[in-house]
Amino acid sequence: MARIVMKFGGTSMAGIERIRSVAGRVKREVDAGNQVAVVVSAMAGETDRLVGFCREASSLYDPREYDVVVSSGEQVTSGLLAIALQALGVPARSALGWQLPIRTSDAHGTARIGTIDTDGLDAALARGEVVVIPGFQGVTQEGSVTTLGRGGSDTSAVAVAAAMRADRCDIYTDVDGVYTTDPRIVPRARKLSKVTYEEMLELASVGAKVLQTRSVGLAMKEGVRVQVLSSFTGADAPMADTLPGTMIVGEEEIDDVERQLITGIAHDKNEAKITLTAVPDKPGAVAAIFAPLAAAGINVDMIIQNIAHATGGSTDVTFTVPQADLARSIETLNQARDAIGYERLVHDTRVAKISVVGVGMRSHAGVASTMFETLGARGINIQAISTSEIKVSVLIEEDYTELAVRVLHTAYGLDAA
Amino acid sequence: MARIVMKFGGTSMAGIERIRSVAGRVKREVDAGNQVAVVVSAMAGETDRLVGFCREASSLYDPREYDVVVSSGEQVTSGLLAIALQALGVPARSALGWQLPIRTSDAHGTARIGTIDTDGLDAALARGEVVVIPGFQGVTQEGSVTTLGRGGSDTSAVAVAAAMRADRCDIYTDVDGVYTTDPRIVPRARKLSKVTYEEMLELASVGAKVLQTRSVGLAMKEGVRVQVLSSFTGADAPMADTLPGTMIVGEEEIDDVERQLITGIAHDKNEAKITLTAVPDKPGAVAAIFAPLAAAGINVDMIIQNIAHATGGSTDVTFTVPQADLARSIETLNQARDAIGYERLVHDTRVAKISVVGVGMRSHAGVASTMFETLGARGINIQAISTSEIKVSVLIEEDYTELAVRVLHTAYGLDAA
Repeated sequence: MARIVMKFGGTSMAGIERIRSVAGRVKREVDAGNQVAVVVSAMAGETDRLVGFCREASSLYDPREYDVVVSSGEQVTSGLLAIALQALGVPARSALGWQLPIRTSDAHGTARIGTIDTDGLDAALARGEVVVIPGFQGVTQEGSVTTLGRGGSDTSAVAVAAAMRADRCDIYTDVDGVYTTDPRIVPRARKLSKVTYEEMLELASVGAKVLQTRSVGLAMKEGVRVQVLSSFTGADAPMADTLPGTMIVGEEEIDDVERQLITGIAHDKNEAKITLTAVPDKPGAVAAIFAPLAAAGINVDMIIQNIAHATGGSTDVTFTVPQADLARSIETLNQARDAIGYERLVHDTRVAKISVVGVGMRSHAGVASTMFETLGARGINIQAISTSEIKVSVLIEEDYTELAVRVLHTAYGLDAA
Repeated sequence: MARIVMKFGGTSMAGIERIRSVAGRVKREVDAGNQVAVVVSAMAGETDRLVGFCREASSLYDPREYDVVVSSGEQVTSGLLAIALQALGVPARSALGWQLPIRTSDAHGTARIGTIDTDGLDAALARGEVVVIPGFQGVTQEGSVTTLGRGGSDTSAVAVAAAMRADRCDIYTDVDGVYTTDPRIVPRARKLSKVTYEEMLELASVGAKVLQTRSVGLAMKEGVRVQVLSSFTGADAPMADTLPGTMIVGEEEIDDVERQLITGIAHDKNEAKITLTAVPDKPGAVAAIFAPLAAAGINVDMIIQNIAHATGGSTDVTFTVPQADLARSIETLNQARDAIGYERLVHDTRVAKISVVGVGMRSHAGVASTMFETLGARGINIQAISTSEIKVSVLIEEDYTELAVRVLHTAYGLDAA
């Protein structure tokens, strides 16, 4: 017997036929003797509909009331899945965020999960009941409904898995696992059977949109084994405990034979590049740029300070921000212009960040140089570089994105045979 | 300053434009210095959509989970109205059934309201906030979501008004008040400015579908002054405290000048007539008929026991049941056939119940005879009669419904000048 959490996204919950199919999958796990909690998203499109109502009611909607409105989508699907399970003879009940309860911070719309009370959950599981929990929602200490931000149901699932000490958290999605890169770009991309939390974090944060980044960070912190699986395979699909998807685990669970130098190649077209020219080359100049951006809550990613101009005393500073924050960044930098003392602000959204990711690269100095040589051989100009322990990222012209991904996938030996 | 409850139905909440218009009406009451709680229905059609999901998921859906699903409709509109009020500069917040809380029995799908905790509500009203409460929903002592049954939002509004000792409970509907009879049948029907609880109960229970019957009973028990108003008049409509609708009040609030002998004429085509022939004319025979019907939860309305057959020893028994319960009634009576000992069961759905209602009739013996003479003069045959202190009802052939209503409306002097 295992204790597992199964999480189903909006596409899996879009209509009663699909909810019935989800109920069938849950029943297989129950019939196999497992204790199961299920975390569900709203029906595909429903959250957008509800968010649309809020925006139409007021462009400056109160996030507290927004949470009351949008959390209803998951409430509906959790009740419906409980009904569909009962129709298959599986004892089931829903437990809403305030009922369990799932306590969160009071940051409405982007709340963070604090503690989850598992007394009622454990008792229900021990009675052989499936507990269906709406994702994305929680409740503050004062009893206000909260939501976790878009995609938050993954985080709900991992948090529930951690609280109930689940053996596994199975995330059913519209892909059947994590690939070495986007299969739409590289048809010979391979599905990974295992990937570490750290790698998944880097892959997720640079555009491999399989799991919400926060959910991976939480899984790493809590040591929750997460499996990504397809929700679209039929009733004859292998059971989830035969691991047909991708397991996201700690590094110690990956043995030497399985370990690759590079795990995957990610790309991200959602960055924008900003260059400030002729910034005074003196102490405190860089702080004058980044302090106001930080105060505005804008995440700066890659930063390059060019060498000082030969004519002396000034330098160019280039960095990237999310495209969604570009307008606010420009406004913020314009306001700080006198304090910074730059000459011109140049921006460019036609850039892409390409990253090679792998825990194995820690001990291999050659990873970065292979990347630069491979791109250089195809005439792809590198505009910026950033590195972490398990990742090397470069900024290139957007038009070269697919080419860069393909040549790197081959260069690191990732193509399927 | 007055404390008032305003209740808006699904048609008033159907879409953001209408919700904004509702917010405008609420603002007028706030601007006039009143403390306001608002009770809202789900958007028109939404509850049907959610009920449809439950039925599609399982014809034998769990009422506990049904309540989780269908209560979400009012949750959405309460959040949206709070947002729309804030957009007009009116401080507002939603308070869901479990938050207030509105405690109910645990009869899922048809729960009854027990107590409403008004501490939070009173504090919010004292701070000048409008509190928006979803109708139709509550929570059990154990923390399960409940609903009150269709049309339950009227009852929610009256219960909230009673708990907060409101000066008035204004029910905004798609009619502008209670009429002497259905204006579609009698164009010269008059709007009543006042009607007693007892009269409204009789009018509501015999087919004048302005308010849910339970809400009127609760208002009578708790002494809540209820006003029925149109939600479709514009911003230049008279303020609600100038009483443009119909006030439902205790008899003591209606003075002699206002008092009419007859308040209104109601009709109801939803009854079915059942006759059992040749029932043994002996003690206990009638109990043998009605005990199994009562056990099956079927409400029997009019009952006539014909005079015993001249040939001796047996009689015919005629009574009415709701048409919706006819099939179950026949099944129940078939099963009890040996115990009752009747010869044949004859049923007829082509009947209508016509009622004249008025608190003034208590002291006027002539009301019933006027009714019988008026109908007889038009050749309308009376199949059954029942009376209460403030009502005389007759059962007639359905085809004569409109004719009967018209001639009675004239006979009792109710036609507008």
